[in-house]
Amino acid sequence: MKRYGSVIKIKPDKLEEYKKLHKDIWPGVAKVITECNIQNYSIFHKDGYLFSYFEYTGKDYDSDMKKMAADPTTQKWWDICKPMQIPLDTRKGGEWWAEAEEVFHQD
Amino acid sequence: MKRYGSVIKIKPDKLEEYKKLHKDIWPGVAKVITECNIQNYSIFHKDGYLFSYFEYTGKDYDSDMKKMAADPTTQKWWDICKPMQIPLDTRKGGEWWAEAEEVFHQD
Repeated sequence: MKRYGSVIKIKPDKLEEYKKLHKDIWPGVAKVITECNIQNYSIFHKDGYLFSYFEYTGKDYDSDMKKMAADPTTQKWWDICKPMQIPLDTRKGGEWWAEAEEVFHQD
Repeated sequence: MKRYGSVIKIKPDKLEEYKKLHKDIWPGVAKVITECNIQNYSIFHKDGYLFSYFEYTGKDYDSDMKKMAADPTTQKWWDICKPMQIPLDTRKGGEWWAEAEEVFHQD
């Protein structure tokens, strides 16, 4: 299992809408997340920053991410979510959420 | 179980020292974290921000946090860590790491 932490900004005037949307995530989106071997997935907000934490239990992360990106329901969900977000300038090529570095872990 | 996400800044010139310290956390500090009912504890870094994720499995968080703060080894650890950090101006009274709001979770 590998833990992933990621960061993105949320447009201040979109925060409430984003929260509302995520309180009641579409079942099709949730299903694909699980099918792509992501579990224990949380998103937190502080001061206009969203940060996410999840645990990846599969064997090929890139392949699972491609599978997720190819899902039509997930694409529709992202079409709603992405305009609410502002990706970090420091994200790597190909990233939307910018991956953070794990500097500590204790079970 | 309740999940906690928190944010703090790290002084850029202290990041490497902070990472080194946390690769080899003192056993006494790790022990108290566990005794205070904190598990699956990670800290991530991105662009000068640290964000932490952990799961609290106890029944009285404030009491456990007081217990942690009263531990002499933890106090010595914090004496080293705190000068490396810059707490957010928007943290609540009594906070060092600023608590973030959980806006999404999926098991």
